[in-house]
Amino acid sequence: MNTVIGVIGAGDAAGDEYETAFETGREIARRKFTLVCGGMGGVMEAACRGAKSEGGLTLGIIPGELKNEANPYVDIPIVTGMGHGRNIIVVRSSDAVIAIGGSFGTLSEIAFALRLGIPVIGIRTWDVSSDIKQAENPREAVEMAAGLVDARAAGGLRR
Amino acid sequence: MNTVIGVIGAGDAAGDEYETAFETGREIARRKFTLVCGGMGGVMEAACRGAKSEGGLTLGIIPGELKNEANPYVDIPIVTGMGHGRNIIVVRSSDAVIAIGGSFGTLSEIAFALRLGIPVIGIRTWDVSSDIKQAENPREAVEMAAGLVDARAAGGLRR
Amino acid sequence: MNTVIGVIGAGDAAGDEYETAFETGREIARRKFTLVCGGMGGVMEAACRGAKSEGGLTLGIIPGELKNEANPYVDIPIVTGMGHGRNIIVVRSSDAVIAIGGSFGTLSEIAFALRLGIPVIGIRTWDVSSDIKQAENPREAVEMAAGLVDARAAGGLRR
Amino acid sequence: MNTVIGVIGAGDAAGDEYETAFETGREIARRKFTLVCGGMGGVMEAACRGAKSEGGLTLGIIPGELKNEANPYVDIPIVTGMGHGRNIIVVRSSDAVIAIGGSFGTLSEIAFALRLGIPVIGIRTWDVSSDIKQAENPREAVEMAAGLVDARAAGGLRR
Repeated sequence: MNTVIGVIGAGDAAGDEYETAFETGREIARRKFTLVCGGMGGVMEAACRGAKSEGGLTLGIIPGELKNEANPYVDIPIVTGMGHGRNIIVVRSSDAVIAIGGSFGTLSEIAFALRLGIPVIGIRTWDVSSDIKQAENPREAVEMAAGLVDARAAGGLRR
Repeated sequence: MNTVIGVIGAGDAAGDEYETAFETGREIARRKFTLVCGGMGGVMEAACRGAKSEGGLTLGIIPGELKNEANPYVDIPIVTGMGHGRNIIVVRSSDAVIAIGGSFGTLSEIAFALRLGIPVIGIRTWDVSSDIKQAENPREAVEMAAGLVDARAAGGLRR
Repeated sequence: MNTVIGVIGAGDAAGDEYETAFETGREIARRKFTLVCGGMGGVMEAACRGAKSEGGLTLGIIPGELKNEANPYVDIPIVTGMGHGRNIIVVRSSDAVIAIGGSFGTLSEIAFALRLGIPVIGIRTWDVSSDIKQAENPREAVEMAAGLVDARAAGGLRR
Repeated sequence: MNTVIGVIGAGDAAGDEYETAFETGREIARRKFTLVCGGMGGVMEAACRGAKSEGGLTLGIIPGELKNEANPYVDIPIVTGMGHGRNIIVVRSSDAVIAIGGSFGTLSEIAFALRLGIPVIGIRTWDVSSDIKQAENPREAVEMAAGLVDARAAGGLRR
C-alpha cells in the first residue's frame, strides 16, 4: 500500500504560500509518497505541480462532477460531486496531512483530522490545538509527516 | 418552507452544557422553528429534548446506517451512513446554526458554516472568527438566529 | 419517531405519472405518515403537492446546495450538495419506498433499497427483482407500505 | 491525466466470476490504464490482483473508515466512510466501467453510470438497458472500454 500524504490549503493561494505548497509537493514526491489533495487551484495545484516536477503520483479528490475541473497536475481525479463535503475524504485517505496557510475550508479539514486522529502538520496555519505539529518549512513538514506515519505503523495504528 | 435552526455541539456534553442545549431547543420550538442536529447524544439529545418539551419538530441527520441510533427525541432521522461526513449536511440544511461548547466535530461544522456563509451564533464555543456572533444564553442565541434569518430573507438571501 | 415513506421517480414526470404521484402523496398524508423524496420536480413535486393538499409533512433531500432549488411543496429541504449521491440518503431515511415509473436515477434508488433490505413498492416501475411489491394504484401502494412497515416493527426490524 | 477504468461487481464473487475479474484487471494493466474499484473482496479483489500481477496501479474507493479494510491488492485506498454511498464515486471517477456479474450494489452503480452518461461494458451482468455494451470476455471488454474512452476524448467529451 502506498504511503499517502495529504496537502490542504486555500484554493486561491498565491505568492509565498503557493511556493511553499510547491516545495511541499516536491518533498513528498522525493520520498516516493503519493500526494492527495482537493484537486483544485492554489495550494492544491502548487503541491501537485511540485510533485509532478519530481515524477511523483498525484490524486485530486475533487468537489465537482467533471474530471476536467481538476488542476492540470492531477494524475487521477477522484470525482465526488459532493462540493465541500469531499473534504473529509481528503483527510481520511491521508496517512498524515500537511496544512498550509488556511481558509475556513482548510479549518474544516484540520478539525476532521484532529477528530479522526490523523496526524496534522502545519505551516503557518490555524492554531486551534496543540495536536497540530508546527513546521518551519516544507522539508521539515514532510520529514515530520514521514516520522509520524512510521510511528503509527510501528504502533500497529496503520489505518 | 419551515425555518430551520441547527444546533451543534459535542455528543458527550453533560451538566451545564446539556442544560444550555436543552434550553436552546425549547426556545427554538417556542418560536415554531424546526430543529435540526446531528441526531446523537449530548448537546444534540438535549436540544431535541428541549424542543419536544415544547411540542417542536426535530430532525436528526445521523452518521450511522440505522434509524434507532438516533436519540429518542428525534422525530425524523435522516439516515446518511456517512459518519462525520454528514456534518456538512447539518450545516447546509440550517438557516442559522447555534454552536454550544465544542469538540473538533463542532469545529468542522463551524468552519463549514463560515465557508458557506451560513450565520453562526456561539455559546461558549470556538472563537476562530469574528463572524461568529457570541451569545450569553439560549434565549439570546435563538433571538439572534431569528434576526439573522429574517435579515437574510429580507435581503433575498434565503438559501 | 415519525413513520417515513419515500416516494421516488423521475424529475420530469408529467401526465398520468404526475397524477399518480400526487395521489400517492395524498394517501401518505391521510395516514399521517411523513413524506420524504428527492425534493425536485416531476414525481417528487407531485407527491409533495399531494401530501400538502392533505396537510401532510414533506421533506426533500435535495441534490444541490441551495434550499430554494427544492420544489415549493417541500416543508423542510435537507441540503446535501451531493448531486445524485443523495439518492442513497432518500432510501435510507425511508421506512418503505414507493417507486413510480422510473428513470435510471430511480433504478439506482431501487437497487439501494433492495441491497439495504428496505421494502420497495412499485407502481409501473423497473421490474428487476421479485422483492419489489407491485401495486396497481396509489391507495394500494400506500396500504402495502403501511403493512410492510408494521410487519417490520412487529418483527423488531425497525431500523 | 491517467485513463481510469472502473471494475464493478459483487463482493462475494468466486469461481468463474472471480477468474473473469482477475483477467479483466490484467488486461487493464497491460494497457497501462489505472484501475478503480470499490476496494473490497470478490470481483474487486480479483480485478486488483490481476492488475497487480501485471504491475498496474490500483485504487479502491472503500466504504469503511479504515484503510486496512481494503483488499491487499489496493495500492491507494480512498477512504470515504460512506458505506454504499461511495458507489457513485467509483462510477464518477471512471472513464468507463466494466460490470461483472452483479448484485444489487452493482445494479446501483450501473444505474448511476447510465444516468451520468459514463460508458458501461457488461460481462454477464444486469440487462436493464441497450446502452450497456455486452462483452464476451475480459479482453473484449477492456478493448471496448478503450474504444469508448478514445471516442469520447475525440469528441471532446473527456469528463
